[in-house]
Amino acid sequence: MTDSIAQQQMLYVRDEMSDAEIAEQADLYGPLTDSVRELIELALLTEVDGPEVRAAQEHLESAKQILRTRVNPGPYGVRWGASGQKRAWGNAAAGLRNAIAPPLVFNFDADGRAWTDFHLGSAYEGPAGLTHGGIAALVLDQALGSAAEAGGAPGMTGTLNLRYLRPTPLGALHAEARIDRVEGIKTIVTGQLSGPDGVCVEAEGIFILPRWARGGDSAKVSDPV
Amino acid sequence: MTDSIAQQQMLYVRDEMSDAEIAEQADLYGPLTDSVRELIELALLTEVDGPEVRAAQEHLESAKQILRTRVNPGPYGVRWGASGQKRAWGNAAAGLRNAIAPPLVFNFDADGRAWTDFHLGSAYEGPAGLTHGGIAALVLDQALGSAAEAGGAPGMTGTLNLRYLRPTPLGALHAEARIDRVEGIKTIVTGQLSGPDGVCVEAEGIFILPRWARGGDSAKVSDPV
Repeated sequence: MTDSIAQQQMLYVRDEMSDAEIAEQADLYGPLTDSVRELIELALLTEVDGPEVRAAQEHLESAKQILRTRVNPGPYGVRWGASGQKRAWGNAAAGLRNAIAPPLVFNFDADGRAWTDFHLGSAYEGPAGLTHGGIAALVLDQALGSAAEAGGAPGMTGTLNLRYLRPTPLGALHAEARIDRVEGIKTIVTGQLSGPDGVCVEAEGIFILPRWARGGDSAKVSDPV
Repeated sequence: MTDSIAQQQMLYVRDEMSDAEIAEQADLYGPLTDSVRELIELALLTEVDGPEVRAAQEHLESAKQILRTRVNPGPYGVRWGASGQKRAWGNAAAGLRNAIAPPLVFNFDADGRAWTDFHLGSAYEGPAGLTHGGIAALVLDQALGSAAEAGGAPGMTGTLNLRYLRPTPLGALHAEARIDRVEGIKTIVTGQLSGPDGVCVEAEGIFILPRWARGGDSAKVSDPV
């Protein structure tokens, strides 16, 4: 095992936080992150002139100075609390504390379907006025991975094949995924991303259980191998 | 043609800005966006307590109030200046004014290769300590699309097939792509995303020229069809 793999495994942590402490942290840092989400859109779309931009930037500098006084060197990693509640709060698609993430919040049906309704604003643009093809891929990778994990077969993406059937608008969207079949360490998952006019992108992915996670349960991923 | 397609085409605009005006805008809004990029990471990793978080948020609110006084309703769209210089500044992977974007800046070789060296921080995490599989897809979709466009065959993503060979670390990365072949309106492009230990993700994509853009040059995309 190389040092970098050892380092990466250290970021799967059971930190024994209680559910109440986790809720308190979500209430504190969630709104801060939402505030930064609005700033992403304003920095993209504002048309104010130099003096106003500089005045706004002074406020941003002041905010950064405060936030920087005590800071985790990063990355955030994946953490589990005392009750087993998982926090992937740094996740680029679903992280509560990651302003890049819309964030996606998944629902799970008894029959193994993972689905999410969400909204993409101007910051997810690719072709003019449309969702970026790579953002569609980000959403679907997360949806397929969540379905695999919910089905008891968590894994890293092995392959991801995407078919773009029609342009994906910005705005209100829906994504869903389900496990098609499990073949040993491989879980084959399919899904779709849909807009108001129907399915925009279809995806099929193979998710593979990492070697170090085989034969253990989720609590064991923080153990050195 | 539906209204939504008409609306979307309105976002491809020749606005006749001079190169000097474009440089001035980049100098004004680029650093603002960089500032928001740092905030994304700080909102994710800060460990300061309630009073500090609230003090920081007050500064963010003040900044937003200033930026909001004159704002484009969005999305940003794709704009061309008087000299033909293109600004896809809202692009989620490469947009100068989009804090979600690293942003990717591409170089082009005479032999048709598009390549970029870039850095992904903690905000692009998926598996603990690693680049999100969907962010790898976002980077590769942009790289393949850029190679197609540079080769004179711009298009929307039709299919994108990704093979994940090894985990993609965070940090310094390299992506490149080139046109494999052109078949009528389809351009087949291949590419890779690499880290310090070699190729992490391979991609093949088919990019398709939209119907309304066929038989025209890039200046014509702002014309109603």
